[in-house]
Amino acid sequence: MPTYKAPVADTLFVLNDVLGYERYANLSGFADAGPDMLEAILGEAAKVAENVMHPLNRVGDEEGCVRNADGSVTTPKGFKQAYDQYREGGWMSLSIPAEYGGQGLPYTVHSAVGEYMSSANMALMMYPGLTQGAIAAILEHGSDEQKQTYVPKMAEGVWTGTMNLTEPHCGTDLGLLRTKAVPNGSGGYKISGQKIFISAGEHDMAENIIHLVLARIEGAPEGVKGISLFIVPKFKLDDDGNAGERNGVSCGSIEEKMGIHGNSTCVMNYDEAEGYLIGAENGGLKAMFVMMNEARLGVGMQGLSIGEIAYQNAVSYAKERIQGRSISGPKAPEKKADPIIVHPDIRRNLMNMRAFNEAGRALILWTALKSDVAHRSEDAKDQEAADDHLGLMTPIIKGVLTDKGFEHAVMAQQVFGGHGYIEEHGMSQFVRDARIAMIYEGANGIQALDLVGRKLAMNGGRAIQAFFKEVGDFCEENRADEKMAPLTKALKKGLNDLQAATMWLMQNAMAKPDNAGAASTDYLHLFGLVALGYMWARMAKVSHDKLAEGASLPIYDSKLVTARYFMERIMPETGAHLARISAGADSMMALEAEAF
Amino acid sequence: MPTYKAPVADTLFVLNDVLGYERYANLSGFADAGPDMLEAILGEAAKVAENVMHPLNRVGDEEGCVRNADGSVTTPKGFKQAYDQYREGGWMSLSIPAEYGGQGLPYTVHSAVGEYMSSANMALMMYPGLTQGAIAAILEHGSDEQKQTYVPKMAEGVWTGTMNLTEPHCGTDLGLLRTKAVPNGSGGYKISGQKIFISAGEHDMAENIIHLVLARIEGAPEGVKGISLFIVPKFKLDDDGNAGERNGVSCGSIEEKMGIHGNSTCVMNYDEAEGYLIGAENGGLKAMFVMMNEARLGVGMQGLSIGEIAYQNAVSYAKERIQGRSISGPKAPEKKADPIIVHPDIRRNLMNMRAFNEAGRALILWTALKSDVAHRSEDAKDQEAADDHLGLMTPIIKGVLTDKGFEHAVMAQQVFGGHGYIEEHGMSQFVRDARIAMIYEGANGIQALDLVGRKLAMNGGRAIQAFFKEVGDFCEENRADEKMAPLTKALKKGLNDLQAATMWLMQNAMAKPDNAGAASTDYLHLFGLVALGYMWARMAKVSHDKLAEGASLPIYDSKLVTARYFMERIMPETGAHLARISAGADSMMALEAEAF
Repeated sequence: MPTYKAPVADTLFVLNDVLGYERYANLSGFADAGPDMLEAILGEAAKVAENVMHPLNRVGDEEGCVRNADGSVTTPKGFKQAYDQYREGGWMSLSIPAEYGGQGLPYTVHSAVGEYMSSANMALMMYPGLTQGAIAAILEHGSDEQKQTYVPKMAEGVWTGTMNLTEPHCGTDLGLLRTKAVPNGSGGYKISGQKIFISAGEHDMAENIIHLVLARIEGAPEGVKGISLFIVPKFKLDDDGNAGERNGVSCGSIEEKMGIHGNSTCVMNYDEAEGYLIGAENGGLKAMFVMMNEARLGVGMQGLSIGEIAYQNAVSYAKERIQGRSISGPKAPEKKADPIIVHPDIRRNLMNMRAFNEAGRALILWTALKSDVAHRSEDAKDQEAADDHLGLMTPIIKGVLTDKGFEHAVMAQQVFGGHGYIEEHGMSQFVRDARIAMIYEGANGIQALDLVGRKLAMNGGRAIQAFFKEVGDFCEENRADEKMAPLTKALKKGLNDLQAATMWLMQNAMAKPDNAGAASTDYLHLFGLVALGYMWARMAKVSHDKLAEGASLPIYDSKLVTARYFMERIMPETGAHLARISAGADSMMALEAEAF
Repeated sequence: MPTYKAPVADTLFVLNDVLGYERYANLSGFADAGPDMLEAILGEAAKVAENVMHPLNRVGDEEGCVRNADGSVTTPKGFKQAYDQYREGGWMSLSIPAEYGGQGLPYTVHSAVGEYMSSANMALMMYPGLTQGAIAAILEHGSDEQKQTYVPKMAEGVWTGTMNLTEPHCGTDLGLLRTKAVPNGSGGYKISGQKIFISAGEHDMAENIIHLVLARIEGAPEGVKGISLFIVPKFKLDDDGNAGERNGVSCGSIEEKMGIHGNSTCVMNYDEAEGYLIGAENGGLKAMFVMMNEARLGVGMQGLSIGEIAYQNAVSYAKERIQGRSISGPKAPEKKADPIIVHPDIRRNLMNMRAFNEAGRALILWTALKSDVAHRSEDAKDQEAADDHLGLMTPIIKGVLTDKGFEHAVMAQQVFGGHGYIEEHGMSQFVRDARIAMIYEGANGIQALDLVGRKLAMNGGRAIQAFFKEVGDFCEENRADEKMAPLTKALKKGLNDLQAATMWLMQNAMAKPDNAGAASTDYLHLFGLVALGYMWARMAKVSHDKLAEGASLPIYDSKLVTARYFMERIMPETGAHLARISAGADSMMALEAEAF
């Protein structure tokens, strides 16, 4: 059975030592979660993750969800009780504004907590996770009445939310969607159509489910310009605002999936269900993106979460399993063989995972702080810069951390040898669960296109220029420091490759747009390497400074080793990415479709 | 439902056009399989794979194997009938020597056929596949009587074989094994112990199962020097050599695994089972390696096989699924959207898979021909060179093609978006099945150590020097040819990186052995890239020549495009591998185990 321990010390290192969490005390909500409170919250969250969520992870995989003959869905044994504990503990409402029943704490804190919970039980955490996205959309685009009607119950967790986008013939290309909305004459709409792959679409954990549904109002323009967003509750509300009469929406079936069996992935049928427009008529795409952006950061987090728990279990196994002798002489002569952690190729796997996870955590928390600045700062310039960062990093966090999270689940499984392939040890579940994060909320190829096609040139490239400057300045400021020089040199080389790739795109993508598409995934990962490398450089800098001040925590020493590992063994991949990007689209696109 | 079409034309291109199959006509068995016969055999094999094996692939995954209360195992519906057709068609005995009831055809033909069968149904093909390994070990190490007793029935397929190595506490490190063999006073041994992860350990498809079991004879030396190999039939043989009385071996349970559900992976319990020594006392490791080497090539093949069928289905989906418009203008204006194959990032996935699969097929067939030369040539020098090649390429084929096969199954699944994650489309099965090939028959980390620790320096580096010379000469001979120059230049750059890495290892691994272990996986993949790149250069050369001669088959044009793609987009990875190798083991090994 896998085990899990929330990396609280590492979260605190990143927030306090590296990112200067205290500097944000002026932002609303931060005063209520100062350093001591932060530590207390994380400690409590760790307990819930380790003791409540995690023990149900395997159960969820084995039992899955069951759709009953009446269309209701039963979640795995214990899920409802754990969810109740979660919401009663107030974890659901951490960063929801107080005026809607939340606690108004920083999104950063919610984000730190979210990592632990998703590590412990990704499938279970999707129920509250989707609810967060729905809340965000209602808060951003809903009317005051809609906010007051829906958000408090959702923040309390007695109601959950969903996102209904995909239809059988329409995934990425939402312009093709057919679900219909017809005015019902009393201010609402009758929604009809079929949605698929709806996570948490039906279940037994909440009193009501608030579906946010993309549909096309009768007579609306074709394509994405004719899409609107609707609130469709599973139960219509009675006069007191409680769940009342059943609405015309039901779960037609549950998908049989590769993983996340504990989450019910539903085909949802809408049969003249009563729905209420949220945001502007035909403004659905914009409203939907609020949910999507929130969800994309959450999915990137899932990549890190699974990568982390898979890593922890690979480490435990590598310390316990004895097999063979160290090539440099026995390390456990009293045993019949050495623990396999002595073998360099096992270490390679462990160090790779560690180097990505720790930098990934820093990147997520850095971005979460920017999100708080973007939403809570009163300085327009700070807000703008933070918002730029958020837009830029969202596809990178989603795309890179989920690709890597899956890769690391596979790596961790490999450390177990044959024992990793049988379900008993739980490593297969991590691989199967992590796989979905590369696909949903915009497949990673779409993230890459979002970066190259939208984020790169937005506002004249303001966001990337700011990022390049920040990383470049850091390298410049620290290159005279001989302890930092090997790291800043490697980082600068990566930054140079990224800037060269950016230049190549500016010069070659306009004339031939296929060049942008052909470069996109490599550009995404190249950007990710530099962003993660920058996190390592900053973590190393702080560690050097702390050690110079006389601190002697082992975390500082191990950060320095891992930073060096990242720069030596991972950063050099930027060269291959640049070579591929500069190759252009010709050989990729030359074959006729018939030649395949 | 996935589909499958055996790539017969590509196999013939590789064998006839690239590898000069006709030149081997002097080797025994090749005269019986001249070019026309070869084409006929492949055509028949394609039908069996497509029409008999493939339709059962999903069934096997869904039903799995069932252990009954009496310890017998029931395989999925239809498996026995398909296996009967397979063995009655003579596919089992293709390359087994005629004196043991086989057809004595080239191993190369067996290998070409094997790819199709494993693509079509990997789990089913493991039953005959393991039998091939057991036959090879008996032919190489068995007494004449053992050969005559066991091989004909196994070649006919009425008996199958297994390999019994792993025990709960002992996988890679066979020195730890505990299964005991005690002389029974009548020339045989009583075998007792438990083996795990035994593929095809128990099933209902054959009249008898011949287990080859590693065990330690009472009083034998500790470690690998005290291991012997035994034949332990499920049913002891009666006086006529037919299956008689039940032996003391039974299936204790079936593992619940991530994939290959159609194959029964058994815990096998030996309770004073009657066994017969094969090969020398305490010479078990050597005898076992005959099976292992045969099996490793077979497993490398599985990587290619799944990569190929996954690719084919990704191509079909990419041609059918319409979503979005080409960035360079609509390609199917009559439809509501373009097929997704117009999008560069989809193409990138398809071209990557294609570029590896076609070169992987060439590498396997090239090596299969060398295997035939090694075993059938009468020229000692040719034999030696071929044997060198075989030893060198075995870990590369096993390690690289299975890593890539899995990666490509994941890539193909990604092309399907959300539809790839649900089991209905069968893409998840490819991922789950392909995963095991990276683990069994020596996890890929072990392949890398075999390459760096054994194969590299064997006979003073004779094998790698010959390979370097062949590839270097090819580049030199073709660099003046302006059509070939871009390819040979890229190949030469890769070769230079490989040679630099080899030099680095020679200079740095002796003094500090951890440097070898730290470099091993990167070295394996670096070597693989150069070997596959060399295959592409040769395929391109032939295609240019054929086109110059006036041939106009589309295969030649598409080979040229794909060769270019490989050199532009895949070959540049050699630089990152070299950088990692040259970084050495320091940052990898610096942390104490407790720091993890």
